[in-house]
Amino acid sequence: MKALRCRECGETYPPARRAICEECFGPLDVVYNYEGLSLDRESFRGRRKSLWRYIDLLPIEDPSNIIELNAGFTPLHNSKRLAEALGLKNLYIKDDTVNPTYSFKDRPAAVAVSKALEFNIKVVGCPSTGNLAAATAAHAAKAGLPCYIIVPYDIEPLKVVQASMYGAEIVKVKGTYDDANRLAAQASEEYGWAFVNIDLRPYYVEGSKTLAFEVCEQLDWEPPDHVIVPMASGALLCAIYRGFKELSGLGLTPRCRIKITGVQPEGCAPIVKAYNSKDSYVMPMDKPDTIAKSLAIGDPGDGIYALKSIRESSGTAVSVSDKEIVEGIKLLARKEGIFAEPAGGATIAALRKLADSGLISRDEHVTCYVTGNGLKTVEALEGSLPYLPVIEPKLEALRRLLEVTA
Amino acid sequence: MKALRCRECGETYPPARRAICEECFGPLDVVYNYEGLSLDRESFRGRRKSLWRYIDLLPIEDPSNIIELNAGFTPLHNSKRLAEALGLKNLYIKDDTVNPTYSFKDRPAAVAVSKALEFNIKVVGCPSTGNLAAATAAHAAKAGLPCYIIVPYDIEPLKVVQASMYGAEIVKVKGTYDDANRLAAQASEEYGWAFVNIDLRPYYVEGSKTLAFEVCEQLDWEPPDHVIVPMASGALLCAIYRGFKELSGLGLTPRCRIKITGVQPEGCAPIVKAYNSKDSYVMPMDKPDTIAKSLAIGDPGDGIYALKSIRESSGTAVSVSDKEIVEGIKLLARKEGIFAEPAGGATIAALRKLADSGLISRDEHVTCYVTGNGLKTVEALEGSLPYLPVIEPKLEALRRLLEVTA
Repeated sequence: MKALRCRECGETYPPARRAICEECFGPLDVVYNYEGLSLDRESFRGRRKSLWRYIDLLPIEDPSNIIELNAGFTPLHNSKRLAEALGLKNLYIKDDTVNPTYSFKDRPAAVAVSKALEFNIKVVGCPSTGNLAAATAAHAAKAGLPCYIIVPYDIEPLKVVQASMYGAEIVKVKGTYDDANRLAAQASEEYGWAFVNIDLRPYYVEGSKTLAFEVCEQLDWEPPDHVIVPMASGALLCAIYRGFKELSGLGLTPRCRIKITGVQPEGCAPIVKAYNSKDSYVMPMDKPDTIAKSLAIGDPGDGIYALKSIRESSGTAVSVSDKEIVEGIKLLARKEGIFAEPAGGATIAALRKLADSGLISRDEHVTCYVTGNGLKTVEALEGSLPYLPVIEPKLEALRRLLEVTA
Repeated sequence: MKALRCRECGETYPPARRAICEECFGPLDVVYNYEGLSLDRESFRGRRKSLWRYIDLLPIEDPSNIIELNAGFTPLHNSKRLAEALGLKNLYIKDDTVNPTYSFKDRPAAVAVSKALEFNIKVVGCPSTGNLAAATAAHAAKAGLPCYIIVPYDIEPLKVVQASMYGAEIVKVKGTYDDANRLAAQASEEYGWAFVNIDLRPYYVEGSKTLAFEVCEQLDWEPPDHVIVPMASGALLCAIYRGFKELSGLGLTPRCRIKITGVQPEGCAPIVKAYNSKDSYVMPMDKPDTIAKSLAIGDPGDGIYALKSIRESSGTAVSVSDKEIVEGIKLLARKEGIFAEPAGGATIAALRKLADSGLISRDEHVTCYVTGNGLKTVEALEGSLPYLPVIEPKLEALRRLLEVTA
């Protein structure tokens, strides 16, 4: 790791606790010293079975600071039954439902909390729509650091329970994620706490690019033609795109020609709207309204960069309805045995739309990112669950039940 | 695989769809043809990152029948913070909360559903306390087989939702797990469905022994001194013990000296009672009453064999209260960032008891099996969750909250 560099004006800074450019208030990115690296495909053999196998490309200087909860290196499923249902031939699901706290957020949280140790930071935290809460809390627990989580009052209760079980202090605010985010920024100034997705953001976002590295390695270093990614702040999409480009820049994969497509729920689709209107800015929206609460960010911080990545890669942006999201969850569970949260259902719903409309062709190699676990978001399924009568434990009662349901 | 052999009278049978000895009604076990095997530690390098890396020691003849949902090869965490809290030096947690359906049951379900394909079986199912329901349903979904699940009416709602999302037909019965089990046995006769834990039981139980294989391989083929395992039917404990012995029999590990300890909740502890009374039989109990519903089997089918394994290995049997279980869940989450269901909390509670009483010594290498995920069983935590007020998203409101909670 060499420095931090402003994504807007190019100003560089030493790699410290800093997230915003002093000159232009642009976001800072980590810059690596690639010259000193000698990596080839063989380098990764026999390494840890977690995202830390890519430590050369992550912003941690001293490996003893690594918090290893086994985030990452999740399965890439060759999803033949789903492919067949959608008329596709080469479909993979990258399954982050089995991360240590059951969402992709374990990746950025792992990197940020490890970096907090490296910076000798004493208290961490995050504003969160839910998944990051658990991820940060668990990694803070393993690191032995106190952790403060700020969440909108109406996120899924299970996500709150989970984070609080890891010992984090949870602060519920009467407002949206964007309100939680603003309060966190103030609390960071006031108390000096390091909010992983604010104060440590340049390091934090690096964790998510391992979703690109792993897919490449799992496909024997032959990247897919097209990947589909859910969008909340847009940071995940940017990180994945950057990951694919980084690997090809290092010569580990062929020249990057990947198309990257972003998905939002109709009830919170500011980036998709901007894409469709050919705008270069993203108009924030006030009141997100969707069952995909983990995607309900009305003012997406990395929206314009996500737009740029999508356009540069010749991907597209798709919005899907809550009904389509639930159908996507069911389709994935029934065909592939993977139980996703609405963000994952949104990805599958978008895939279906693109396959139906021919925007994805039968022969394209497609990878869908399924980023969170359905157990956390069971409220989203209300109304679409079957009624289950209770019968006597007798064969006769079973026979009658089968006749009724036949 | 050579044959099935009766655990009681030794009668052998060809490896078919059969679970019970015709001569004496004893359970049948799979017998392997070890002579034909040439396995050494190197054999496993570069293999699949799932339980199927041990296919030579699993009862599947044709690898094309494998249903690969990435069950198994879950993390083994070196749990230093928990070890320190308990005054131990060498503690590992085997974390099956991140299996594809979030419990260890993916292991036996993967083997049984694959075997169902091998036998050309058209419908599968299981009676279940909940975790096996999801595991069987997901593997059946991936295999494209219809699946019937019979459960007691009062299991955790989330486990039912999860299994039904994978497309399984769920039958709720007014009764206990033992009632569900009896009805399944009748339904198997009536409809010819293959219940994985009844009709395919000899194959099914083989899946769980991979929990021993993986721990050995992850510890560089140096088995722990002592392992702690939750007990419901007792089958898991027997399978893990058999797995350790199998590896040492094959010369892959040193001579097996492992102690194996079984844990039950006080509200359903028939095996522990038998152990404490020095009985060789297990007296069934009628009405299990515990928050650890996945352990609530009053008439444990493999209870006497679990007893035998515990005694042979010089381990012990421990019961823990529901309160201790909740404390175990919290301790594990707060120290190690792993969120377990009550069965896992029971294991940690037992570990704590044994460490406190000196029955586990400071220097012993201990591995605890954490077999299921806390998200599924959040009801168990009711009453032990903090009250979380909702505040305005303002620094002043946060300041007041911190003063109150300080």
